[in-house]
Amino acid sequence: MSPSRERLVVIGGDAAGMSAASQARRMRGPDELEIVAFERGHFSSYSACGIPYWVGGDVAEREELIARSPEEHRARDIDLRMRTEVTELDIEGGRVRARELDTGAEAWTSYDKLVIATGARPVRPRIPGIDAPGVHGVQTLDDGQALLDTLSATRGRRAVVVGAGYIGVEMAEALINRGYEVTVVNRGAEPMSTLDPDMGRLVHEAMTGLGITMVDDAEVTKILTGADGRVRAVATTSAEYPADVVVLGIGVRPETSLARAAGLPLGDRGGLLTDLAMRVRGHENIWSGGDCVEVLDLVSGRERHIALGTHANKHGQVIGTNAGGGYATFPGVVGTAVSKVCDLEIARTGLREKDARRAGLQFVTATISSTSRARYYPGAADMTVKMIAERRTGKLLGVQIVGREGAAKRVDVAAVALTAGMTVDRMTALDLGYAPPFSPVWDPVLVAARKAVTAVRAAG
Amino acid sequence: MSPSRERLVVIGGDAAGMSAASQARRMRGPDELEIVAFERGHFSSYSACGIPYWVGGDVAEREELIARSPEEHRARDIDLRMRTEVTELDIEGGRVRARELDTGAEAWTSYDKLVIATGARPVRPRIPGIDAPGVHGVQTLDDGQALLDTLSATRGRRAVVVGAGYIGVEMAEALINRGYEVTVVNRGAEPMSTLDPDMGRLVHEAMTGLGITMVDDAEVTKILTGADGRVRAVATTSAEYPADVVVLGIGVRPETSLARAAGLPLGDRGGLLTDLAMRVRGHENIWSGGDCVEVLDLVSGRERHIALGTHANKHGQVIGTNAGGGYATFPGVVGTAVSKVCDLEIARTGLREKDARRAGLQFVTATISSTSRARYYPGAADMTVKMIAERRTGKLLGVQIVGREGAAKRVDVAAVALTAGMTVDRMTALDLGYAPPFSPVWDPVLVAARKAVTAVRAAG
Repeated sequence: MSPSRERLVVIGGDAAGMSAASQARRMRGPDELEIVAFERGHFSSYSACGIPYWVGGDVAEREELIARSPEEHRARDIDLRMRTEVTELDIEGGRVRARELDTGAEAWTSYDKLVIATGARPVRPRIPGIDAPGVHGVQTLDDGQALLDTLSATRGRRAVVVGAGYIGVEMAEALINRGYEVTVVNRGAEPMSTLDPDMGRLVHEAMTGLGITMVDDAEVTKILTGADGRVRAVATTSAEYPADVVVLGIGVRPETSLARAAGLPLGDRGGLLTDLAMRVRGHENIWSGGDCVEVLDLVSGRERHIALGTHANKHGQVIGTNAGGGYATFPGVVGTAVSKVCDLEIARTGLREKDARRAGLQFVTATISSTSRARYYPGAADMTVKMIAERRTGKLLGVQIVGREGAAKRVDVAAVALTAGMTVDRMTALDLGYAPPFSPVWDPVLVAARKAVTAVRAAG
Repeated sequence: MSPSRERLVVIGGDAAGMSAASQARRMRGPDELEIVAFERGHFSSYSACGIPYWVGGDVAEREELIARSPEEHRARDIDLRMRTEVTELDIEGGRVRARELDTGAEAWTSYDKLVIATGARPVRPRIPGIDAPGVHGVQTLDDGQALLDTLSATRGRRAVVVGAGYIGVEMAEALINRGYEVTVVNRGAEPMSTLDPDMGRLVHEAMTGLGITMVDDAEVTKILTGADGRVRAVATTSAEYPADVVVLGIGVRPETSLARAAGLPLGDRGGLLTDLAMRVRGHENIWSGGDCVEVLDLVSGRERHIALGTHANKHGQVIGTNAGGGYATFPGVVGTAVSKVCDLEIARTGLREKDARRAGLQFVTATISSTSRARYYPGAADMTVKMIAERRTGKLLGVQIVGREGAAKRVDVAAVALTAGMTVDRMTALDLGYAPPFSPVWDPVLVAARKAVTAVRAAG
């Protein structure tokens, strides 16, 4: 063992943390770098994004969601300690205090390098009854298991989903697949507030068409319980919705209480702030990534909080490379997200109208309807594409797509164009794949770009 | 009628020509611009790319392939003359001579502005029997109708497709769908010579798996006919393949005999050469687009001939804008193409290895296997992605994808990245849409980019 052997401590055993640990291990062997990781839950390196599909029955076994088990990590010389929660960061002393949740034993562990990957915690409104049996979050595998246990034990068939963002709509699909009557209660004017309301309206209509009761503009005030103490209904300012089970899909916040207590720099949304190498700002030997950080939005130039497995994995890769003595950066995001509710696909990238306004940009919009394949080809499915472009320059600012099969991943074209800073005029000439089974002769993204060009010219 | 009314003559009534005519009409009304178009066939503005799906039965009616009929064009004040072939261009005199094919009547028509959109003609090998009944090209709707008539009239069930490019593989699918035993005879070492041979091999294997007999490295020497004069077999240098019907899918060449006779500038591949505004080089008032021109390949910087409806439509749009007094350009292509054989999807963009070599580029390659969705999500389909990047700079040069559902259109990400001149390193951080039903947490294109980065570094 080398006398210069360093210790890397990782807080959080999911995507960002364990990607970082694995990549650092690839960079440097155990003789050079000791890696200790703490995870307070029962599972490591799993796909939280897959939970709705496991709950809905598309994924049969919990284990399918686990990319790498604790044992597999340990076989790669990563000392992953499960059910062990870090309770304090001592930045000055270069050490973390961790408690074994099952025994209560606590100990300090010193580090040369630290990775903070504490993830996010679901928003739980502070309303009466929120902790009643039958009310579930779906942030962790443990949460998913608890919800599945409830679903198995529950006779009723009525579910209320609180929130109509990604988690909300995916959980609505999951519960429909399990035979529930589903009501989605949503604070906003339309579901999917990550879209502009005109596009969210399309989601509302499609979800209603799927038999889901959509309650918009509604604030949940109380969870009502029965004589058995279990949830029996969800009350809003205006109505009550009977519920045998309630799923909270209101969104998540960065889990940065440790970092906050340690005085590390946090952004407006409560996430850790890092540099491009994913180092916590002002700290040479501390990195952070995944759902607990804010990321640079390359379109608006502002920090955002986006909890998404693909970013967490990329962060982990960058952190592990840097912590292992290499060099890598994460340049930022353009805000791409895709989702589905049954056969409805929902995608967005870049700025919404209100984001553009907030960023001080003047813009035009263009919305078009087209199809996923040549109209004459079987299975051609409708899609609506909305494009937002800067006034004068015609620079692409954002794209939103709602449609059926083949709609969602088309947003990737816009994501690359945004990254490259393309104008909508330039986009009209993009050489996108064309054959009747895959696209109309003008791909829907190109049709939207053409209309956006006209709008830019008209706006002057 | 304005005394300054100009006449625009369009030669060719399909995608490029009629897109140009329609766009010119949008720009200028009939008082300002007279538009006369000549088409030698029976149909206008149809999707030639759709012919295989019509032959295969996915598209029920020929009329579904027709985007706009002659009557519809005429209703927009475009004087479209069907079954009328232009037989001579008099550039000096500013006029074209056209013959009505049904009456034989000939007349000169003068023009102020001319659009040449004469398309392409299929390659027909000069071998004995090539004109025998039962041997069919599939370039035009007329060709497709003739083939369908033969299929209806033919008792046999054995088809030989000559050529294994896009048309060949799509016709193989069409004939399989109609219940034929299909043999594909191909000059190259592997099918799909628009891919590198290692990727073409995957197509070979998949087509064999579909029950298609693949004969590679085979030169057709003769079409053998029976006592009735109809085709009965295809002979190659090494073997004979019984055939009740033969489909030629060997490729196409620019149809530029008129242009050649008139002394207009042609490229190495026989296509008209234009400037970025799609004007024929050296001619202020003559434009050309679609399958009869060569286009600039933005990756290699060289001219190529690519017969593809999406380019023809874009050309027409640009030509019509310019001929109508506006301004538009077609910057070039990156060589994107997608196709399928049954459930096998095939895509490519940019340069193959041999293209890169020919362009004087040194490069590395990276090939990876991944899936279209998260591995645990139902329907996750395998795909192989090959990426080619320039040595030293890491600039993306090309991508090829072979896989099942969800494979083909992923090439669009690479098409945009090529257009933007991205490096593979930059691509690893692309913010592509992720959710389990749509992608693994690392999209296959990103996985390929990561491997390509490693290859670039290793090559030094």
